Amino acid sequence: MAVTAATRPVRKRVVIIGGGFGGINAVTTLGKFPVDVTLVDRRNHHLFQPLLYQVALAVLSPADIAQPIRSLVRNHPNVDVLMDEAIGFDLAQRRVKLKTEVELEYDYLILATGSTHSYFGRDEWAKLAPGLKTVEDATEIRRRVLLAFELAERQMMETGTHPALNFVIIGGGPTGVELAGAISDIARLYMASDFRHIDPSMAKVLILEGSPNVLAAYPLDLQKKAIEQLAELGVKVRTGAHVTDVQPGYVMVGEERIDAVVTLWAAGVQASPLGKLLGVPTDKRGAVLVDCYLNPPGHPEIFICGDLAHFEQDGKQVPGVAQPAMQMGRYAAKRVGRLVAASLGSDGSGKDAQFRYFDKGDMATIGRKAAVAKIEWPFKAHWSGFPAWMTWLVVHIFFLIGFRNRLSVFRQWAWTYLTFSDGARLITGSQELPGWDTQGDHSGVVTTKPLDMNSPKT
Amino acid sequence: MAVTAATRPVRKRVVIIGGGFGGINAVTTLGKFPVDVTLVDRRNHHLFQPLLYQVALAVLSPADIAQPIRSLVRNHPNVDVLMDEAIGFDLAQRRVKLKTEVELEYDYLILATGSTHSYFGRDEWAKLAPGLKTVEDATEIRRRVLLAFELAERQMMETGTHPALNFVIIGGGPTGVELAGAISDIARLYMASDFRHIDPSMAKVLILEGSPNVLAAYPLDLQKKAIEQLAELGVKVRTGAHVTDVQPGYVMVGEERIDAVVTLWAAGVQASPLGKLLGVPTDKRGAVLVDCYLNPPGHPEIFICGDLAHFEQDGKQVPGVAQPAMQMGRYAAKRVGRLVAASLGSDGSGKDAQFRYFDKGDMATIGRKAAVAKIEWPFKAHWSGFPAWMTWLVVHIFFLIGFRNRLSVFRQWAWTYLTFSDGARLITGSQELPGWDTQGDHSGVVTTKPLDMNSPKT
Repeated sequence: MAVTAATRPVRKRVVIIGGGFGGINAVTTLGKFPVDVTLVDRRNHHLFQPLLYQVALAVLSPADIAQPIRSLVRNHPNVDVLMDEAIGFDLAQRRVKLKTEVELEYDYLILATGSTHSYFGRDEWAKLAPGLKTVEDATEIRRRVLLAFELAERQMMETGTHPALNFVIIGGGPTGVELAGAISDIARLYMASDFRHIDPSMAKVLILEGSPNVLAAYPLDLQKKAIEQLAELGVKVRTGAHVTDVQPGYVMVGEERIDAVVTLWAAGVQASPLGKLLGVPTDKRGAVLVDCYLNPPGHPEIFICGDLAHFEQDGKQVPGVAQPAMQMGRYAAKRVGRLVAASLGSDGSGKDAQFRYFDKGDMATIGRKAAVAKIEWPFKAHWSGFPAWMTWLVVHIFFLIGFRNRLSVFRQWAWTYLTFSDGARLITGSQELPGWDTQGDHSGVVTTKPLDMNSPKT
Repeated sequence: MAVTAATRPVRKRVVIIGGGFGGINAVTTLGKFPVDVTLVDRRNHHLFQPLLYQVALAVLSPADIAQPIRSLVRNHPNVDVLMDEAIGFDLAQRRVKLKTEVELEYDYLILATGSTHSYFGRDEWAKLAPGLKTVEDATEIRRRVLLAFELAERQMMETGTHPALNFVIIGGGPTGVELAGAISDIARLYMASDFRHIDPSMAKVLILEGSPNVLAAYPLDLQKKAIEQLAELGVKVRTGAHVTDVQPGYVMVGEERIDAVVTLWAAGVQASPLGKLLGVPTDKRGAVLVDCYLNPPGHPEIFICGDLAHFEQDGKQVPGVAQPAMQMGRYAAKRVGRLVAASLGSDGSGKDAQFRYFDKGDMATIGRKAAVAKIEWPFKAHWSGFPAWMTWLVVHIFFLIGFRNRLSVFRQWAWTYLTFSDGARLITGSQELPGWDTQGDHSGVVTTKPLDMNSPKT
């Protein structure tokens, strides 16, 4: 019997907040179920964050790793996309408060708003040491790194000297290591023949890590390999180095001043503030403590996915990376589907399997042809160097959402890695760097004359 | 005999200001001559401006049409690139004053700093109606156009109504026509299936042109064709419409108020202010009056190229488009080379041919598969519609500087035009539009529910 509009039961309303890996995997799964879904995000695009550092370091363009959310759900007519911001909840009335003062009703809520930088209470550092979470962050980091070389060349031509090209990265997790390797690549490989007065390969990259180890989430042998591979790229690593201040042009580690033309932040993350606004228990990062169904205690209608969820498995917290977020999103969606079916008297029993993170492993790249890979599936292995990098390459191409992006990124990589040539080395926005222009006398008359190519560079 | 450093004569110094079509063609030509060249630009990239509107309308990424200037001159060791800004001249001492307070000495100066928007003294309109000259302009226009659809969808879901999607373009020259066609394309083709509550194809595009004709530089038959083709895309054209005010959310034409969710400026251009700073005669747009050698009167050592030059040929001013700029840049470089050779006692006679613009024709696209083309070479013809558009496509792919970009743009176009799918539909930056949010009551509770796909849209 055809279900007509009049006899069709009112469909359950699912609201998803956040269009990251958790939200997108939830929404595409729910698109196949008989529910009405509204996905809310401040942005109009889903970002493939594991490659964001390549946008920051000018290998890829933003459009290569971002996909409009509407395109991703185009084939699911039961899905609404709302570009808005959630600012609070009324759990009793089952409503989400939006920035536009509208309240959105839900039967099920999937919250996947991820995490943001934490400057440990020193928010004034944010302008001096940008972190890497959004497209805007990436283009800002790109601007600063490329501009540092331009300003050094200019100052060298005009005054005969320039500040040392020290790039300081605060934080030795995967993002810090990837940024460090990529800056070293840019300086040594891609820019080598572009400047006449400075020698970009003299740039120094330093990672400051507060804990005793870089890549703390990786096994010790891979941590060691990572430091070796970083050393080969000329990247220095200082562990146990607590940054006490960030200022224009330098950072302080205790009493020691370390000059920096560009300082980047890859240290702390904190969960999205929405977790705390739920009024349920959170951990010290602000992540919501969830049970084996990804529900906060007492709220079987609310699911927390991705970085915002504090989920423990086998006594260890599942890390805030892409794979668990994707799996959580799919799990939450399927469970909602099952609960809806049960409530409609269908075969859904409501007795779902509990969520379990299926760990296929984890990887971090270190420059252009090295990486560390902790492989858990389909076999267990610790790889490093070129094989790990090739694995990283294949996996990331494979997981990139959307055929168009995949092709574009592959072509871009092939071009860049084979020719050492430009990706997207555009400087947009302001032409100032915090802390620059304090050294050297800029006035005077210059007869610019290219450096003799046979003479040694600075 | 090998020339050693000691016996090598001091080389002439050429300073080029501006890395647009004029400057880049001058510098790559001079790269082969025995002179020392310094190219100064505020930007680190050369922009293929004829395709900038496609960045604005999310078909291409900025990196597709921009190339770092350093890459373009990488193989010319006699060329210096300086990311700086010229702010004045000392013609007697032959020096350029830079923003960093340094002065740059030259023997020959090539000035090619192009043009910028002119708001006819109403600079406060700039924020309300952005123009299209830089990468930042393009991403700002993209942001506004895409955001208008997002905000309309949001307002429709939340209040059941939304402001009419009127896009108003002030100015009916090639840029205005190309923007109008591209907005119409986006609305009708690429976004059609992405929204559930609004119907993007109901968007209206209006061109307001003050003069009696659109595409005034084209012959009358092509102007007529252009208006016909615009009409087919649903773009309305009002000629003789003088905009008297631009406000958030609307523009005024005399006493008439025309609502606009997005207003774009494609009306006036004025020459770069550097022309006037030279202290030589300029026309009313600020362009420098040059003689048959592209020199301002009395200054055979200074060459003005591109939009900044007011050059008349056969009683008509050569237009401010890419082709003349490229030819001027190459001409100026060759003439400098000849003058230098003459001053060194070589065979250069100094008696160069005068500059003559070789007009191959001109083209403007109108949406996805129409254009007008005034062809002057290798035969004379007036084309419109699909043949003109194909010609435009081939010529633009061919002239795109750099193999990498060419391939990328071609692939992007093929993908977009064949699949009607996304180019680079990312909204970055602020989520506010000037003049939005004045209509409708946003508070209340909404049970969002996707529109029944079978029911008519708004």
